[in-house]
Amino acid sequence: MSMPRTAATFAPPVMEARRWLEGVTHPADCPLMNVSQAAPVEPPTRALREHIAQTALTRDDAHLYGPVLGLPALRAELAATTARLYGGAVEEAQVCITSGCNQAFAAAIAMLCGEGDEVILPTPWYFNHKMWLDMAGVRSVALPTGPDLLPDPDRAAGLITSRTRAITLVTPNNPAGVEYPADLVQAFFDLARARGIALITDETYRDFDSRSGPPHALFQDPDWDDTLIHLYSFSKAYRLTGHRVGAMVASAARLREVEKFLDTVAICPSQLGQHAALWGMQNLGQWLAGERDEILARRAAIAENMPRLAPQGWELLGLGGYFAYMQHPFAESSAALAQRLVRDAGILCLPGTMFCPEDDPSGARQLRIAFANLDGRGISRLFERLAALPVT
Amino acid sequence: MSMPRTAATFAPPVMEARRWLEGVTHPADCPLMNVSQAAPVEPPTRALREHIAQTALTRDDAHLYGPVLGLPALRAELAATTARLYGGAVEEAQVCITSGCNQAFAAAIAMLCGEGDEVILPTPWYFNHKMWLDMAGVRSVALPTGPDLLPDPDRAAGLITSRTRAITLVTPNNPAGVEYPADLVQAFFDLARARGIALITDETYRDFDSRSGPPHALFQDPDWDDTLIHLYSFSKAYRLTGHRVGAMVASAARLREVEKFLDTVAICPSQLGQHAALWGMQNLGQWLAGERDEILARRAAIAENMPRLAPQGWELLGLGGYFAYMQHPFAESSAALAQRLVRDAGILCLPGTMFCPEDDPSGARQLRIAFANLDGRGISRLFERLAALPVT
Repeated sequence: MSMPRTAATFAPPVMEARRWLEGVTHPADCPLMNVSQAAPVEPPTRALREHIAQTALTRDDAHLYGPVLGLPALRAELAATTARLYGGAVEEAQVCITSGCNQAFAAAIAMLCGEGDEVILPTPWYFNHKMWLDMAGVRSVALPTGPDLLPDPDRAAGLITSRTRAITLVTPNNPAGVEYPADLVQAFFDLARARGIALITDETYRDFDSRSGPPHALFQDPDWDDTLIHLYSFSKAYRLTGHRVGAMVASAARLREVEKFLDTVAICPSQLGQHAALWGMQNLGQWLAGERDEILARRAAIAENMPRLAPQGWELLGLGGYFAYMQHPFAESSAALAQRLVRDAGILCLPGTMFCPEDDPSGARQLRIAFANLDGRGISRLFERLAALPVT
Repeated sequence: MSMPRTAATFAPPVMEARRWLEGVTHPADCPLMNVSQAAPVEPPTRALREHIAQTALTRDDAHLYGPVLGLPALRAELAATTARLYGGAVEEAQVCITSGCNQAFAAAIAMLCGEGDEVILPTPWYFNHKMWLDMAGVRSVALPTGPDLLPDPDRAAGLITSRTRAITLVTPNNPAGVEYPADLVQAFFDLARARGIALITDETYRDFDSRSGPPHALFQDPDWDDTLIHLYSFSKAYRLTGHRVGAMVASAARLREVEKFLDTVAICPSQLGQHAALWGMQNLGQWLAGERDEILARRAAIAENMPRLAPQGWELLGLGGYFAYMQHPFAESSAALAQRLVRDAGILCLPGTMFCPEDDPSGARQLRIAFANLDGRGISRLFERLAALPVT
């Protein structure tokens, strides 16, 4: 008997965490702080919502099937933006639009891998990547990171086998927050190319990178598309999570294979969502810069508040994008602690165990705080609540 | 070396057919008739578009992530509607919403099958089912149908092996148009239950079934959910193809497994699309009845026009839903004929070869005409053009 694909993996962590809230009441003076999901909680700007409404009223084709690989205008716009931001050459034919960035990853794996193949993931990993690989019959090969949470290309080289098809990097990292240095990303690219495998970079949080200039130079290589598969999401930048619009940037030949997968699993991305993303790219550049400034201010507030937890033994391991990745001082596993935090502190966050292989003990000491929805005062309150927890 | 999943299947037929149009110009007095895709070409009603626009403006949560399994209100509404239409008991927990009906099928297969398992598909089959099974590492076991295009449960019984996980029926059928009799569907259900496998019924076109009353009695079995997995699409009924909203009706236990797949491949269906589908179900019942009447009138027009093609040797094999499935009189394969029809008759339709296994010669004699977008005059013109083609 073979095992059904879904039986090969675990339940969605975000939905599981939501279930911890059931039956728990929070006092009025200590409402729940939800720092579990990496998503905006505010809707898109008024102007963008008006554009969506106008499009729904006036564009018939926004309600009907579109091309499998996405709206040509959006593909062209993202190609131009990617070329500009990364300082390289990217054509419309090298871009496809997907129903969210998770789907872009799933499509990339379907295009690269068959049963029994392997993909290298630095740990802590993004759990939806691990889940998809499980369901695709692909072995996730864990690449443990050091204290700085950065993966080591030499160590990765030692994990490559004849079944390895790709290395996946998430930068800025989910869950760890760290922004991978450009030369590190380059070293992984060089390794992947030398070994004839793909490098997948999931850059969902790139609009909130604290660095100026291109986060890496991969697109400046004229032959970048022999190795690189770049993933992006419109969800965070324009607050479009409920519209499901992401993208893959890869060689046109690879996208022709990806088209088979997308045709059967989606047919096309939401047309209204694509129009929204296109308008956002064309009109919200300045607004997005302000959003980034705000996220960076919140990130700074996290760093500033950390000393308040030092006496209890908390440590900040990584910080960036939407995330603070923290080491807690409690004896219990983060899996138990995270559930207790809902009851004892009114905080919903995800435990490191959700981002690590079962045989890796480090996750038990870690928590992911998705801080992006907390303003300065909220961050201060979060630290107050954590500082008030007795450490035994 | 394993084969990547996408390399295991063929290119999307609808996109391939679109490429046949490249470089072909159609004279003004003989514009292209596109009868290739089973989709409305008109947008949703004005009232529904206004509801979508209003929702975009006034509901913040319509732009943000929702539950993986869909909006509770939409799940409840479809549960109630399914119970009413089929005369059985269906709970909200037995319904999940997907990003289109193709995705519902993909999720069902991921929940049922592992590498090397088998699923029985009557032929001609729906090509996206075949493509997904190819990419899932599942063997599609062809169940050839007879001259009436109806599958035979006894013949299916002989194809079941220890690796068989499901039989999939599409009724009304795509591509063949035939509406499967209730007792035939029941016989397949009884067979599946007796052999401990699932019966998947894809009922995407059920709103255009010519019969009154429930198309089958499966939901009237109090334990229907131990065997039945029912798939539905909101795309055709409310003209929402570009919003990607479909559904699966199955046991709550199965949907918990499906949730893993949907979380990784979609996170959630388009929220605006779900609000549109809900409003459609609640407000467009009478309008939909009128749509059905119109489709049935067009279907009747196909039947009335068929005698005009009898002298050339055309035959109507199946008629229903959106489709006429026809046998052509030409010596060439339908694969070549379909491309020639674009140039010689200004007609884009799909050849039977796209719906049949490679080793099945019957597809070469067949064409699928998706007639739903042609009014009575259009249908008459279609037959004029076909009748004018010289048969050698």
